[in-house]
Amino acid sequence: MSRLVMKFGGTSVADLERIRRVARLVAAEVETGKQVAVVVSAMAGKTNELVAWTDGAGAAAQGLPASDDEYDVVVASGEQVTAGLLAMTLRNMGLNARSWMGWQVPIITDDAHGKARIDDIPPEKLGAALDAGEIAVIAGFQGVDRQGRIATLGRGGSDTSAVAIAAAVGGACDIYTDVDGVYTTDPRIEQKARKLARISYEEMLEMASLGAKVLQTRSVELAMAHHTPLRVLSSFVEPGEAPGQGTIVCDEEEIVEKRIVSGVAYSRDEAKISLFGLPDTPGVSSKIFGALADANVNVDMIVQSHARSEGAANMEFTVGKRDAARAVEIVRAAQKEIGFEDVQSNEDVAKVSVIGVGMRSHAGVAKTMFTALAEKGVNIQVISTSEIKISVLIDAAYTELAVRALHSAYELDKV
Amino acid sequence: MSRLVMKFGGTSVADLERIRRVARLVAAEVETGKQVAVVVSAMAGKTNELVAWTDGAGAAAQGLPASDDEYDVVVASGEQVTAGLLAMTLRNMGLNARSWMGWQVPIITDDAHGKARIDDIPPEKLGAALDAGEIAVIAGFQGVDRQGRIATLGRGGSDTSAVAIAAAVGGACDIYTDVDGVYTTDPRIEQKARKLARISYEEMLEMASLGAKVLQTRSVELAMAHHTPLRVLSSFVEPGEAPGQGTIVCDEEEIVEKRIVSGVAYSRDEAKISLFGLPDTPGVSSKIFGALADANVNVDMIVQSHARSEGAANMEFTVGKRDAARAVEIVRAAQKEIGFEDVQSNEDVAKVSVIGVGMRSHAGVAKTMFTALAEKGVNIQVISTSEIKISVLIDAAYTELAVRALHSAYELDKV
Repeated sequence: MSRLVMKFGGTSVADLERIRRVARLVAAEVETGKQVAVVVSAMAGKTNELVAWTDGAGAAAQGLPASDDEYDVVVASGEQVTAGLLAMTLRNMGLNARSWMGWQVPIITDDAHGKARIDDIPPEKLGAALDAGEIAVIAGFQGVDRQGRIATLGRGGSDTSAVAIAAAVGGACDIYTDVDGVYTTDPRIEQKARKLARISYEEMLEMASLGAKVLQTRSVELAMAHHTPLRVLSSFVEPGEAPGQGTIVCDEEEIVEKRIVSGVAYSRDEAKISLFGLPDTPGVSSKIFGALADANVNVDMIVQSHARSEGAANMEFTVGKRDAARAVEIVRAAQKEIGFEDVQSNEDVAKVSVIGVGMRSHAGVAKTMFTALAEKGVNIQVISTSEIKISVLIDAAYTELAVRALHSAYELDKV
Repeated sequence: MSRLVMKFGGTSVADLERIRRVARLVAAEVETGKQVAVVVSAMAGKTNELVAWTDGAGAAAQGLPASDDEYDVVVASGEQVTAGLLAMTLRNMGLNARSWMGWQVPIITDDAHGKARIDDIPPEKLGAALDAGEIAVIAGFQGVDRQGRIATLGRGGSDTSAVAIAAAVGGACDIYTDVDGVYTTDPRIEQKARKLARISYEEMLEMASLGAKVLQTRSVELAMAHHTPLRVLSSFVEPGEAPGQGTIVCDEEEIVEKRIVSGVAYSRDEAKISLFGLPDTPGVSSKIFGALADANVNVDMIVQSHARSEGAANMEFTVGKRDAARAVEIVRAAQKEIGFEDVQSNEDVAKVSVIGVGMRSHAGVAKTMFTALAEKGVNIQVISTSEIKISVLIDAAYTELAVRALHSAYELDKV
């Protein structure tokens, strides 16, 4: 019998009425004869409330070690509430359901509290419950470490819970959210954005990591590694209405009609750090990025250029906005060793990217991008590429303009 | 090294500022060299919020079996939050602390979800943590059944958690609440009420079951059974201020100066059911109270009297107010079998009681009570007695008058 893991995010379970709507969607899948597990997030807003309390009680402000394990205890309670309420609601409809906390499944994680990774999900107990015809309602976002303490997976972790559970029990995974699929770009910026019927894992991975917030990156990685059939669809349907087909995320081979570019993504979460007057000698980069790596600062785009003065170079790179001040501090602390003249930080930047597996076999993709941006007078500050995407850093004020120009240049508005 | 379990109720941990106040009280005990475990309730109001959600999602309204196990999953999350926040706050003060959920200790209960009883608390893990100098912050009100599912102990269950843990690890138990001890009567009714320095377990048990809401009845029973030193004191002290001595609940032998009467309690939670025209034959009582017992209705006071008509009797008894309508239904359904003429229910009644271990050895206690009430024109409807208390049922309108008259008659206002 086929198994399905359905995942519902915070807005889908924000109140009792929406939880009842979720219960009807679950019931419809059960009626088709599937074995169903459901993964739920906390009610929208609850996690923020809990996090605010931990901020108030937390140790970080005093320079003492953070209580990440206790943070997890507090924050994981949100999913516990939703799991219990949904199980009650399903029973209220005459269905056989029970809730599962992370420690009951168990979803075993490492002990990196607050951003734990799932190590193992022994499938025996959950599989037996599913075989017995029980709907398993599982608290997302949480697990238990090997010391028996509650651990959370970090924001958006419920997607990862759902995919990991689907992989463990051998089923497909449907991610229900407040949009009805993955779009060629953000429909709030480009009204002509179209819903994609299918997208490859790799493209989805780039979309997710480049700022399209539909799926959590790690969940896509996990689905790709296990070839777990993944689907994104909307829970916001009226009673009696079907949720539509959504977008299927799958192996590249399962996509018949390939496009060169599948989507345009953007992110305003990065800041640009510029170092001026670097010595043009070997080993400089390793000093800079070694110091940042030691401090756990992730660097994304990097570009090096020759400076106006002879024998000196400039270096520009991007880091997450919340790491920007720290990155400048770290670099300043190593100024003597690195030997640069000046450092500047700029947060008014946006990264705009075009993504598509078709790039592998088609030339001219970059040219189309640069031409389209040049025509609109958008200046490119930094460029980075991978096999299936091209990203450019631009002035943040041009974000919407650039997204629309690229969407049109690659004819993404056309079916 | 001596061990202490400190328990803080919902109003004592209602917000972060109060949690910090609790942390300071804990720190003060740790400084005296004690090994300290702390048991916390949910933040005031949180349990009600969670219960309201379960009412909305619950099955009771539809005639389907109640989801008491899922109710427990939802409601137990409140204590989880407080335990995590207090552990963080203690660490923030540089102390060594960690939180414990019921399933982690483990606090093993039966499977009577929503009103579970503690079966066992294996002391090994908790004891080892205390020996290692760690403050154990334990979520009250919750445990885990032998199937590994979360169970709650019912309202007020955190007192019971605290005493059971003190008994398991061999320590004293301080119950912090919003009053600074046990009083001779409710100070809101009688301003001259005095705080008792000591009270026996048995008296406290009667006080608790007769309506003085300072301690949960089961927690007192448990303390009595294990001779656990128990103390009631206030958490509402200013920073730097000591919480006072509170009231010590102990074995009768440890109380040097015994009084005949220690306190006056009252309860408006009962209703009186009157049956008229009963046949004056053997077996009638057993039919009535058998039917009520089968339906799980607890009967408290009972009085039987002869009716005006020959060969017939009347019966009056009290039940909890929320059971009153059901009790009348049950009796009516058995009217033919029992053979009474009429049944009436009256909710405008109050039970007023005087309690004191000294009654065992002193005569005339009842006379003082009845005289004092008669002098104020208070009519007694039903009387019940035990070895250490006398209760009377009166018109609810006279409650305050009766409490004050009795408090004065037994000279409880005098030191």
